Amino acid sequence: MLVNTRSVRIEWGDCDPCGIIFYPRYFAFFDASTSALIERALGMIKRDYLKAYDFAGHPLVNAHCRFLIPTRFGDDVTIETTVTQIRRSSFEVRHRLTKDAALAVEGFETRVWVQGHPASGRMKAVPVPRDVIERLSRG
Amino acid sequence: MLVNTRSVRIEWGDCDPCGIIFYPRYFAFFDASTSALIERALGMIKRDYLKAYDFAGHPLVNAHCRFLIPTRFGDDVTIETTVTQIRRSSFEVRHRLTKDAALAVEGFETRVWVQGHPASGRMKAVPVPRDVIERLSRG
Amino acid sequence: MLVNTRSVRIEWGDCDPCGIIFYPRYFAFFDASTSALIERALGMIKRDYLKAYDFAGHPLVNAHCRFLIPTRFGDDVTIETTVTQIRRSSFEVRHRLTKDAALAVEGFETRVWVQGHPASGRMKAVPVPRDVIERLSRG
Amino acid sequence: MLVNTRSVRIEWGDCDPCGIIFYPRYFAFFDASTSALIERALGMIKRDYLKAYDFAGHPLVNAHCRFLIPTRFGDDVTIETTVTQIRRSSFEVRHRLTKDAALAVEGFETRVWVQGHPASGRMKAVPVPRDVIERLSRG
Repeated sequence: MLVNTRSVRIEWGDCDPCGIIFYPRYFAFFDASTSALIERALGMIKRDYLKAYDFAGHPLVNAHCRFLIPTRFGDDVTIETTVTQIRRSSFEVRHRLTKDAALAVEGFETRVWVQGHPASGRMKAVPVPRDVIERLSRG
Repeated sequence: MLVNTRSVRIEWGDCDPCGIIFYPRYFAFFDASTSALIERALGMIKRDYLKAYDFAGHPLVNAHCRFLIPTRFGDDVTIETTVTQIRRSSFEVRHRLTKDAALAVEGFETRVWVQGHPASGRMKAVPVPRDVIERLSRG
Repeated sequence: MLVNTRSVRIEWGDCDPCGIIFYPRYFAFFDASTSALIERALGMIKRDYLKAYDFAGHPLVNAHCRFLIPTRFGDDVTIETTVTQIRRSSFEVRHRLTKDAALAVEGFETRVWVQGHPASGRMKAVPVPRDVIERLSRG
Repeated sequence: MLVNTRSVRIEWGDCDPCGIIFYPRYFAFFDASTSALIERALGMIKRDYLKAYDFAGHPLVNAHCRFLIPTRFGDDVTIETTVTQIRRSSFEVRHRLTKDAALAVEGFETRVWVQGHPASGRMKAVPVPRDVIERLSRG
């Protein structure tokens, strides 16, 4: 499967009064990492791939994180993202965030490929395009 | 077990270009909900209970969310929070976020009671005080 | 002028490693406060007033804050919001955030009433509807 | 004066239902930009320079932003940061955020060099160290 790797600096404003990251920030990092993976697979940025494939996005139905080592402001971490499974209209994403080469956080998402208008509740799962599956599956 | 219920307005700034909530915001809501539950159990705000029980906080080792119904700006939602299990030095929290009485999001956290300095990596799990267990366990 | 007052709890996740609020959070509070003021003036929530008045929103061209007293998690603060001036297609908003009755933060915004599609860059300032001006001007 | 330049990708999660950035995010970007400038001037990351100069940080007393051109997810923007004035215990910072070489946002901060404990309200302005002034003033 295609893997996308990116570096993120943990900032002062990402951290809580204990001096470690406020964990919801990890989910924001991971959301951007999923978009970055798909952008890389499809060769275009998200606002272009939403148009090119004429869909409304890939909202989550499940998110799960394991926190192993705390990170704090000034840490430069690496996030490796890959799709681990693709079903008809949903797919699984895994993020591995490392700090000094040690696994610090592991994130898992189940996302659905949808059309329609999420805000109005009128959205429906549609098949992930074959083209997208192929591009995400490349080594 | 003690249950704490609070209302949250989903704001414009919580929402993404689809007009629905950017899901990391749920984790921020749930973190505040866990603090609110403990504050209610102990009868003091977090900065006071950190001092009173002389500990560094209750960081997460696991967070899990299921997203069932999207929410959008202007929605007033209700979050019901309770501890579902208490072990020696960790505990499980469950959040049920409802919109118009329908379950929209369900969140689960595993938290550890720690002493020390999380930012320096020198923190250790310590037993949840008996007093805290009793107060969280009340109906 | 109409004044809207609301209470906000400063949360753990709003605060930085110094234990005081990470100041960008004030701007998020103030954005929600401006919407709350207009919602109160017009008697409907934002997603309804955007439709009823057929416009794209009230983006900022200027934001300014003075920080007088730090706030920290557990603080319950009060935000008083009012429009201080209305021009043809723009208006000035002032927020006064108090803690224990002392002014802690003062925020000022210049907002424009726009139609079109902000994301595509095709938006234009249009006159604030007379009805809206009247309702915001009531004592 | 020393200028620090960094690139930021505007992410999906930074944007609001209009598809443009939710403006409080700019202040988070600018806070990180100020730290990056000082880190570059002093040759160490923030958590190290807080220790090396034995101070509590550089909180804001004033923040001001002018928003000229909206940015949206997928935009890669550049932030140029410099100190424009240094007084005894405070200094002025200016951020210029450009998109395709056009000025999109301009930010101004007044920050104070403080010692003590901001969260307890016991902090006091102290002189900016001469060494820091010199390093920030280099071309």
